[in-house]
Amino acid sequence: MAKKRETGPKARLPKGFQDIGTGDIRATSRMLATIREVFERYGFEPLETPAIEYTDALGKFLPDLDRPNEGVFSFQDEDEQWLSLRYDLTAPLARYVAEGLKEQKLALPFRRYAVGPVWRNEKPGPGRFRQFMQFDADTVGTDNIAADAEICMLAADAIEALGIPRGQYVIKVSNRKVLDGLMEAAGIGGDENFAVRLTVLRAIDKFDRLGAEGVALLLGAGRKDESGDFTKGAGLSSDQAGKIIGYLTAPGVTGAEKLARVDGLVRDSSAGPTGVSELAGMLQLCQAAGYDQSRVQFDPACVRGLEYYTGPVFEAELTFQVKNEDGQTVRFGSVGGGGRYDGLVERFLGQKVPAVGFSIGVSRLQAAFAALDKGNAAAADGPVVVLVMEKDRLADYQKMTQSLRQAGIRAEMYLGTAGMKAQMKYADRRGAPCVVIQGGDERAKGEVQIKDLIEGAKASATITDSKEWREGRPAQISVKEEELVAKVREVLARHQG
Amino acid sequence: MAKKRETGPKARLPKGFQDIGTGDIRATSRMLATIREVFERYGFEPLETPAIEYTDALGKFLPDLDRPNEGVFSFQDEDEQWLSLRYDLTAPLARYVAEGLKEQKLALPFRRYAVGPVWRNEKPGPGRFRQFMQFDADTVGTDNIAADAEICMLAADAIEALGIPRGQYVIKVSNRKVLDGLMEAAGIGGDENFAVRLTVLRAIDKFDRLGAEGVALLLGAGRKDESGDFTKGAGLSSDQAGKIIGYLTAPGVTGAEKLARVDGLVRDSSAGPTGVSELAGMLQLCQAAGYDQSRVQFDPACVRGLEYYTGPVFEAELTFQVKNEDGQTVRFGSVGGGGRYDGLVERFLGQKVPAVGFSIGVSRLQAAFAALDKGNAAAADGPVVVLVMEKDRLADYQKMTQSLRQAGIRAEMYLGTAGMKAQMKYADRRGAPCVVIQGGDERAKGEVQIKDLIEGAKASATITDSKEWREGRPAQISVKEEELVAKVREVLARHQG
Repeated sequence: MAKKRETGPKARLPKGFQDIGTGDIRATSRMLATIREVFERYGFEPLETPAIEYTDALGKFLPDLDRPNEGVFSFQDEDEQWLSLRYDLTAPLARYVAEGLKEQKLALPFRRYAVGPVWRNEKPGPGRFRQFMQFDADTVGTDNIAADAEICMLAADAIEALGIPRGQYVIKVSNRKVLDGLMEAAGIGGDENFAVRLTVLRAIDKFDRLGAEGVALLLGAGRKDESGDFTKGAGLSSDQAGKIIGYLTAPGVTGAEKLARVDGLVRDSSAGPTGVSELAGMLQLCQAAGYDQSRVQFDPACVRGLEYYTGPVFEAELTFQVKNEDGQTVRFGSVGGGGRYDGLVERFLGQKVPAVGFSIGVSRLQAAFAALDKGNAAAADGPVVVLVMEKDRLADYQKMTQSLRQAGIRAEMYLGTAGMKAQMKYADRRGAPCVVIQGGDERAKGEVQIKDLIEGAKASATITDSKEWREGRPAQISVKEEELVAKVREVLARHQG
Repeated sequence: MAKKRETGPKARLPKGFQDIGTGDIRATSRMLATIREVFERYGFEPLETPAIEYTDALGKFLPDLDRPNEGVFSFQDEDEQWLSLRYDLTAPLARYVAEGLKEQKLALPFRRYAVGPVWRNEKPGPGRFRQFMQFDADTVGTDNIAADAEICMLAADAIEALGIPRGQYVIKVSNRKVLDGLMEAAGIGGDENFAVRLTVLRAIDKFDRLGAEGVALLLGAGRKDESGDFTKGAGLSSDQAGKIIGYLTAPGVTGAEKLARVDGLVRDSSAGPTGVSELAGMLQLCQAAGYDQSRVQFDPACVRGLEYYTGPVFEAELTFQVKNEDGQTVRFGSVGGGGRYDGLVERFLGQKVPAVGFSIGVSRLQAAFAALDKGNAAAADGPVVVLVMEKDRLADYQKMTQSLRQAGIRAEMYLGTAGMKAQMKYADRRGAPCVVIQGGDERAKGEVQIKDLIEGAKASATITDSKEWREGRPAQISVKEEELVAKVREVLARHQG
C-alpha cells in the first residue's frame, strides 16, 4: 500500500495516566492472585462488568463528598444517551443486581468479587491517578450482621495472606447509625443540619492525625494548620463539641467497654441504639471465630468518606511506621475499607436490597509493599540470551533457543544487529542469568559456551587483574551441544532461592 | 444522612456490552495464564498501558478497512484535547516505544506482551461486542526475519499449550511484499489503483470460503451470493484476474515448491522478490527449529485486514470442523493473527522502527473451547455451605465456617433468613459439594452432620422409595465437632478427579 508522510503527533500520555512496567505488573499479579484465593475461600465468586455504563445507571454516588459528579469520563452514544466510564465497582454491581432481580435471573444472597480498573476524571496529583485498580468483595441481599463480620475477617485474612504479620494491621469498625445517633444527641440531626454534619464527619475523620485538641478546633470556630492555612470549623457550641469529643475518646480497654460508654451517649437517639447493638453483634461474631480486637476492633473515629453507607463501616489500616513525604514517621494507614449500603439497588427497583462490601486499594497496598521492601523481583530474572556470533547461522541459534523454551526455560535469541560486546550489554540489561555462545571454534568442536552472568558479576567484583580475568574465564563453561539444556538448567538452579 | 427518594433509572447495560459470569471468568483466567506462560518462556515481558490515550496518538490505524475512524469512543479533556479509549493494543505500544526512544529510556530490541480490554464504538452484532479482550506479543526494533519466525512458533506453542493438538491448527504465513509484487505484475500498482487493490485484497481474503471460481467473479464484474446480494467486483481483465488466481492456486506440496511458482509470478516486480526471500527465510527458520509445514505453512490467501502491515503476515487458524449458525460444517477458523508493521512508530519520530506482532482473539479462542467442550467447570465446584439451624447461634456456625476456610476449604455460612428446605436449595444452586448441619440434637451430642450433595443426588436417582430414602439417609454422616474439617476434606477428596 502507498504510504503518506504525516506530520507526526507527539508521543505522550494524557496527564494522570501511567504505563506500568514488568516489575510492577509481576508484583501486582502476585498480590491479586493471593487476594483472589482468600476471597474464593470465603465463597465469593468473580463477576466482570464492562468499563462503560449508562451515566444515569452509575448515579450520583460518587465515592467522596469532596469530589463532584463531574469527576467521571462521559460521552454520548449514537442514540444520544450518555455513557460513562465506571468510577468504582460498586455502582455497576448495583446495576447488575437490579437487572438480575428484575429479570429473575439472580438469587439472593449473592456474593461476588470483582477486580479491575476504574476511572476518575479529576485533577491528578502525586500518586493520584485517573485510572487505578480496585479489588472488591460484596454480599448482596442480606441484612444479617454476620455478613459484615465475615467481610472484616476476610479483610484480615487477605492482609495476612499477603505476608503482613498479625499486629501490623488492624480492621477498624464503626457504625453510621451510631454516628447518626451521636449527631442527634449533639443537636445537629435533621435535614437542615446536613452540611454541618458533613463538616463534623470530616473533623471526626481527622482524629487519628490531629488528636482531640485539633478535632475540637474543627468542631468549633476552626483550625489553622502548621502552614498557616485556616480550615473553617463546624461552629458547634463547646457543649455540642464536648459530646463528639467524649465519643471519640470513649475510655475502655476492650471494644465492649468503649461501646458501653458510647451506648450511654446515644441511648436516647433514634438510630444510635441499633447501631450500638449491630456493632456489638459484629464484634462478638469476630471474637467467637478467633478474630479478637488485635485484628478487628471498634474505632469511634472510623467514618469512611462514602455518602451511601447506612450501617457498619470498616477500614483496613496498616499500623507499621513509615516516613511520609515530609520525613515524619507515621502509620502507613488505610489500604481499603467498606461498609453496609442498603440504598444503592433501591434506586433502580424502589425496593430495599441490603448489601455490604469491602474495597481494597491495590496501589495503596503496593506502596505498602514497597515500604516493607517485599515482593521485589530477583536481580537476574530475565531470559537466557542466545548470542548471534555468525549472522548466517540464525537457524542454528534459533533452534538452540527453541530447545531451551521447550524445556520450560525462558530464553531468547538476540535479534539486533550489534556485535558481541553490545550483545553482552543487552543480556545484562535484560537481567539474563546466563548467555549461550557458539562461534566458529565452538561449532567445529560441537560445543557451546555458557557464560554465567551472575557468577561473572561476582567474580569481576573480586578479580582486579584483567589478565587474570581473561585467563580464568570465570563462570564460563564449555559443554557439548546436546548437553545445553541440562547445563543451563544447572546454572539456573545454582541461582535459585 | 437524609435520603431523598428518586425516580429510578432503568437498570440496563448499553448495547454491545456484556457482564461476564463465574464460569467464563474462570475459563478465561486459565486460558490467559497458559498463554502468558508461553509468552514469558519466549522472553516477552508484560507491559500495561492505560485505557485512555490522546486521539491523535492512537492515529488512524484502525485495524480494519471496513471500519471507519469514527469507530472509537472519544471525549474531550479539560484542556479541550481529544482523548479516546484504545481500540487495540498496538497503537498504544507505538506511542510507548516512541516516547521511550525519545526520552532514551528504552533499548531495542524490545519484546513485550500485553493483555486487556479494547473498545470499538461500532454497531454490535451477535458475538460482536464493543468491549473485548486482546492478548498481544510484539517485538520492536528489529527487522530480523527471525523475529517473525519466532512469533509464528510462539503462536503454535501457545495453541498447543492450550490443549489443541497438533494437526488441528495451522499458522498460515504470507508476505505483503509478495502481494504488492503480485498487484504490480497484474498492472494495478501505483497510488491511483489504491481502491482497486483493496477490493482485490478483500477478494483474495475470501479464497478459503469461495474458492477460485468465487474469487474470480469478485476480481471481475462481481458476484451474487446465495441470498441474492450482489458484491461489485474489482473490474480486472481476465488476464489480470488470471494472474491473481494463478497465485492463489500455486501448485506444490511444500511451501518451498509453492514459493518457487510464486517467485516466477512476481520476479519482475519491485517488492515481490524481497517478499519471496523473506517468506523462504521464515519458513526455513521454523523448519530448522522443528516447526514444519504441518504447523507453520505458506498460504497465498493469507492477507490480514490491517492496512499497516508492511511485510510478513500470519494467521492462526483452527482447522477442526464445527457447525456454523446455518448448520453447515466448516473449519473453526482464525483465532488470531499479526504481521510486520514498520510504519507505526515512524508517525511519531520520523524514523523507521521495524516491529512485528501477533494478537490473539481471546473470545474467539473461548468459542473454540466451547466448541471442543473443553475448559468447563466441574458440576459441584461451589463452596461448602454451613446451614443456620438455630438463628441465635450464628457465632457457632460462623466459627465452623472459619475453621473450614482456615484449612483452605471454600466455605460459606448461609446468610439469608429462609428455612432448612430453602437453605438446601440455596446450597444446590451454589454448587456446594456438601452442607454442614448442626441442630439442637446434634449440638447436645457435640456432633455435626455432613450431607454429601453429590452422593445424595446420585442416590436419589436410584432410590425410589421415600421411606427407604429417609431411613437410609444416603450420603449423610454424623461426625464429632472436632472432626469437621477432616471429614469435609474426605468428602471433597471423594469427588475430585
